[in-house]
Amino acid sequence: MNPGRCAACRYLRRRCPPDCIFSPYFPPNNPQRFASIHRIYGASNVAKLLQQLPLHLRTQAADSLYLEAQYRIEDPVYGCVGLISLLQQQIHDVERQLAMTQAEIAFRARHPQAVESNLLNNVGNPSFSNQASSWFM
Amino acid sequence: MNPGRCAACRYLRRRCPPDCIFSPYFPPNNPQRFASIHRIYGASNVAKLLQQLPLHLRTQAADSLYLEAQYRIEDPVYGCVGLISLLQQQIHDVERQLAMTQAEIAFRARHPQAVESNLLNNVGNPSFSNQASSWFM
Repeated sequence: MNPGRCAACRYLRRRCPPDCIFSPYFPPNNPQRFASIHRIYGASNVAKLLQQLPLHLRTQAADSLYLEAQYRIEDPVYGCVGLISLLQQQIHDVERQLAMTQAEIAFRARHPQAVESNLLNNVGNPSFSNQASSWFM
Repeated sequence: MNPGRCAACRYLRRRCPPDCIFSPYFPPNNPQRFASIHRIYGASNVAKLLQQLPLHLRTQAADSLYLEAQYRIEDPVYGCVGLISLLQQQIHDVERQLAMTQAEIAFRARHPQAVESNLLNNVGNPSFSNQASSWFM
C-alpha cells in the first residue's frame, strides 16, 4: 500500500498518478469526502466535471459537489433542493414581517392619537404589532 | 425504433422494459430532462438513487435531481450551493432591514417630539428610514 495515495485512489484501489485529477481536492486524511461524492456522482462524472474547469476553480467545485452529495445522502428525496425551498420560505416570512412593520410605522405617522396612549406600553409586544398591522392587511 | 420507449431508454439506445426504473419519471416528450441528469450523475447512479426510494417519493426525487443537474450545468463551479449562498445572504439582508425598522419604531415611541415634526413628510422616504435607524446602529 502506498501511503501517499489520495483518498480517491485509495477508495478506487488504484495507483495515484502524479497528475491525478482527484489528488489536490481529496487528501488521504479525509476518506469520507470522496466516499460521499462517489456514492452520488460516481468517480468518472466527478473527474469529468473537474477536468472541464480551470485549475483555480476546482477546489470550490470539489467543495460544492461534496456539500451537494452530503445533502443528497441526508435527504435522498429532495437533496439541497429541499434546503432551497426552506430558505425561500424563510425569505418570504421575513419579507412579510418587514412589510407588516413598515405598515405599522406608516399607520403611526398618520394616526398619532390612535396609538399614542398604548405606544409606550406596547412597543416590542408582538400582539400589538400584529394588531396594528392587521389594520392594513 | 419503438415510439413507446421512455426518454432514458431512447438516450441510452436500449429496449425500454415494462418495469423500467426511469420510464415513469422521464417521458419521451422531454428528452432534455434525462440528458441533463445523465450528464451530471450518470444513468446508473440515478437508477440506484430511485431504486432505494419508495415508489411514492420517486417523482419528487427525479424532479429535485433534475433541478440540481440544471443548476450544475448552469454553474459548473458552485451548482445549487451557489444559490443557497445567495439566498442566505438575502435572508441576512432582509433580517437586517427588519431590525432597523423595528429600532425605528422603538425610537419613535420613546422620542415622539424628536420625530414628530418630520414624520408625516418623511414616512416612506428611505433616506429618513436610514437616518432614524443610524441613531441606533
